[in-house]
Amino acid sequence: MEVHFGWVKSHRQELWFELPERRQLVNITPDVAEAVTASGVREGLCLVNAMHITASVFINDDENGLHADFEQWLEKLAPEKPHGAYQHNRTGEDNADAHLKRTIMGREVVVAITAGRLDLGPWEQIFYGEFDGRRRKRVLVKIIGE
Amino acid sequence: MEVHFGWVKSHRQELWFELPERRQLVNITPDVAEAVTASGVREGLCLVNAMHITASVFINDDENGLHADFEQWLEKLAPEKPHGAYQHNRTGEDNADAHLKRTIMGREVVVAITAGRLDLGPWEQIFYGEFDGRRRKRVLVKIIGE
Amino acid sequence: MEVHFGWVKSHRQELWFELPERRQLVNITPDVAEAVTASGVREGLCLVNAMHITASVFINDDENGLHADFEQWLEKLAPEKPHGAYQHNRTGEDNADAHLKRTIMGREVVVAITAGRLDLGPWEQIFYGEFDGRRRKRVLVKIIGE
Repeated sequence: MEVHFGWVKSHRQELWFELPERRQLVNITPDVAEAVTASGVREGLCLVNAMHITASVFINDDENGLHADFEQWLEKLAPEKPHGAYQHNRTGEDNADAHLKRTIMGREVVVAITAGRLDLGPWEQIFYGEFDGRRRKRVLVKIIGE
Repeated sequence: MEVHFGWVKSHRQELWFELPERRQLVNITPDVAEAVTASGVREGLCLVNAMHITASVFINDDENGLHADFEQWLEKLAPEKPHGAYQHNRTGEDNADAHLKRTIMGREVVVAITAGRLDLGPWEQIFYGEFDGRRRKRVLVKIIGE
Repeated sequence: MEVHFGWVKSHRQELWFELPERRQLVNITPDVAEAVTASGVREGLCLVNAMHITASVFINDDENGLHADFEQWLEKLAPEKPHGAYQHNRTGEDNADAHLKRTIMGREVVVAITAGRLDLGPWEQIFYGEFDGRRRKRVLVKIIGE
C-alpha cells in the first residue's frame, strides 16, 4: 500500500487498424505500453477503448486455441448469418452481429499505471477485437495521472 | 500525442429516469456532454454508471433496428419468462432476467475527455439501458481531470 | 452538482484469494471500501480489476438465489464440459470455459469516490467472481483522485 501525490498529467493517442479479415484479434499491449512511456505518467489510469461500435478492446490470454474458441463461441451467441435475421441489416448493413459480438467482448478496458508501467497480471494481454474489418478503424488511449 | 499538466478537478452529477416500459433504451449523450461542460474539465476521464443493478450504461449505435435486435437477442440469452425459472424470483422479485441482461450490456462506460469535450468515435452514443423500468432509477456521472 | 480542486493522489492495493471451489463469488465491497479510506482520496475514481484472466470483478446484488442463477446461466452460455470441446484445453488446461465466463461477467469495475467514500447505488455490491479456483489469485485496487 503506497500513496503518491503530484500534478495531474494527461495524454492522448490513437492506434489505427485496417485488418484484412472480417474478424481478427490483435495484441496491442506493446502499443499501449509505449503510450504509457510517452505520457510520462508514473501513477494513474489508462483507458483503452474502441472508437467504433463493431470493435472491442478487451483483456485475455494470448493463446491461439483460446482465440479460436472465442470465434466459435461468439458465432454461437451472435451468429453473423443469415444477415436478414437482424433488423439492423435492413438499413443496408450486414454487421448487426458485430455490434452484438462487441457487446459481449466489451468496448474498453481501464488499466492501472504503477511506477510508470502498465500494472497487468501475469497473463493479462490487451487485445483489439475486430468484428467488421477491412476498413480503417481506431482505438483511443487516454492516460491520466501524475 | 499531447501531454497536459494542471490541478485535479472533479465533478459529480446524477441523471434520473422513470421509464414507462419494462425495457427501454435512452440516448443520454447530450446529458453527459452537458455534465462535462459544467465540470470545466479539459482533459480527463468521465465515468457513467447505472446506480441500479437491473440497468446498464453502454455505448453503441443510435439505430432503431439495432435496438430491436438487442431486445430480441437479450430475450434469447436471458429470457424474462417463465419468472419461476430463476431462483432470485423466489424472493418475490420478477426481475432476475434484468440482472442478467444488464450483465451482458455492462454497468458502466469510461469516456475520455479531450479539449473540454467527450472524446467519442463517429458513431459512439451513450445509452441508458433499462431492463426493469416503471420506477425511479438513476445514473451517476463522475468526472475527474484538469 | 459540485466541482472540486486539489492535488492528485494515488493508491494501490492487492486483494488475495485462494478459494476452495472452482467457481465462487465473494463480496469484496468492505475490502475496497477500506482501500478507499486508506488512500485518503476524497474525490476520484477507484479501479478494481481481476489480475487473472479466468476471474472477474463485477457489481450486482448480494442475493444467494441470484448467485445460483448466475452459475446456471453461465454454465448454459459457456459450459465447462466437455473439456475437449475447447481448443484452448488442448494445451493441457481445462479452463477455457472460465475465460469465456469471465468475459461475460467482466474484468473490472470503475467506481466513483465522493466525499471519501465509494459512491455506490443502494444495492450495488462489488464481487470477485472466481471461475477457476483452488489456486492463489489476486485483485488490484487502484485509486486516483484528490
